[in-house]
Amino acid sequence: MLSSMKMSQLCETSGVPVPSIKFYLREGLLQAGERTSATQADYSNAHVERLKLIRALIDIGGLPIATAHRVLEAIDTPNFPLTYIFGIAQLAVSDASLYEDVDPASPGAVEVAATMRRMGWRVSDGNPGIRGAARILNTYAALGYDDLANVSEEYARAAALVAEADLAAVGRRTTVDDMAETVVVGTVLGDGLIAALRRIAQEHVSNTMFPTPRG
Amino acid sequence: MLSSMKMSQLCETSGVPVPSIKFYLREGLLQAGERTSATQADYSNAHVERLKLIRALIDIGGLPIATAHRVLEAIDTPNFPLTYIFGIAQLAVSDASLYEDVDPASPGAVEVAATMRRMGWRVSDGNPGIRGAARILNTYAALGYDDLANVSEEYARAAALVAEADLAAVGRRTTVDDMAETVVVGTVLGDGLIAALRRIAQEHVSNTMFPTPRG
Repeated sequence: MLSSMKMSQLCETSGVPVPSIKFYLREGLLQAGERTSATQADYSNAHVERLKLIRALIDIGGLPIATAHRVLEAIDTPNFPLTYIFGIAQLAVSDASLYEDVDPASPGAVEVAATMRRMGWRVSDGNPGIRGAARILNTYAALGYDDLANVSEEYARAAALVAEADLAAVGRRTTVDDMAETVVVGTVLGDGLIAALRRIAQEHVSNTMFPTPRG
Repeated sequence: MLSSMKMSQLCETSGVPVPSIKFYLREGLLQAGERTSATQADYSNAHVERLKLIRALIDIGGLPIATAHRVLEAIDTPNFPLTYIFGIAQLAVSDASLYEDVDPASPGAVEVAATMRRMGWRVSDGNPGIRGAARILNTYAALGYDDLANVSEEYARAAALVAEADLAAVGRRTTVDDMAETVVVGTVLGDGLIAALRRIAQEHVSNTMFPTPRG
């Protein structure tokens, strides 16, 4: 690994095109290199690592630039409390429209509260998942899917399993900075991983329950 | 309930603004009403139901118009095989960039194949979840998260639990049309529900593992 490199080498090592690197520098997502002349700067392996993280947040996580900026800022704040990092990461990767306020007296919100009591989940009122889940349950009901307008035992247990694996991964980190980054990356990529695995398992269970007749 | 209504009543009953209804009619997402004069048409409860479904796909599922169109077309095709409906619904609600092709020899793809063997999941090669999961695992590895570049026992079991609940909901439907609609709606809304519940469970587990010191 190179410990010091020019812009062209940073591009080569990270696989990120020069115009994109310059854009991230301008937007403040990537910290500036060490200036060596009026037109040149030296970059380090820290820049390579940061570029990978930026691409993961934007390309894989689908975050808008401004949101990625907020998330990276939280990661960069020394000793930022982990609970806040979680909050920022969760809000950042939560579709705003999905997580907007819902009436706490609506059937969906009541069912989410009941699920939390049943599962023994104690969280802050501001948790975006509470509103997100309530809104989805209300949507099922509005569409006439009364049997889906509640949190099934399976969904609740699945969420608990995933969250335990997520936090175990955070717990394996030795510094608060690494924990923070793991929260962000894991929140962004984990949603996609569970959705992808769900598609595989769905087809398998579907083939078992509704086998296609042979022609 | 009204069995026959004018555009203004359709707007009132469905809660969808008139300009949006006219847009869905033009785009072919909503079937035309029964024409009663040069400028007027009658709409039925079927139109109200369809409008709710369109709003769920677009607002909650975040589908682009063209994709919603494809999905609704599949639902409308009589006796469309359920396996195909699944495929269309899965592809429709899968972010294209997330599910693009990945090298089958890449470590992520190899790990997904190993997971499927371990779980006994037998699915077609075209299942978008296979590529989606492989790509996410490869991204974890590229970011240096070697411990997350595999499918944990918890994630695999969570996906199996969710898929069983999903297919049980499909199995409760009595007509193929209703099954098809349930696949689409459940695929779109279910991803959001599991992500939302994950955020609640994460905060709970986080509070248990990393309690905030009292001030």
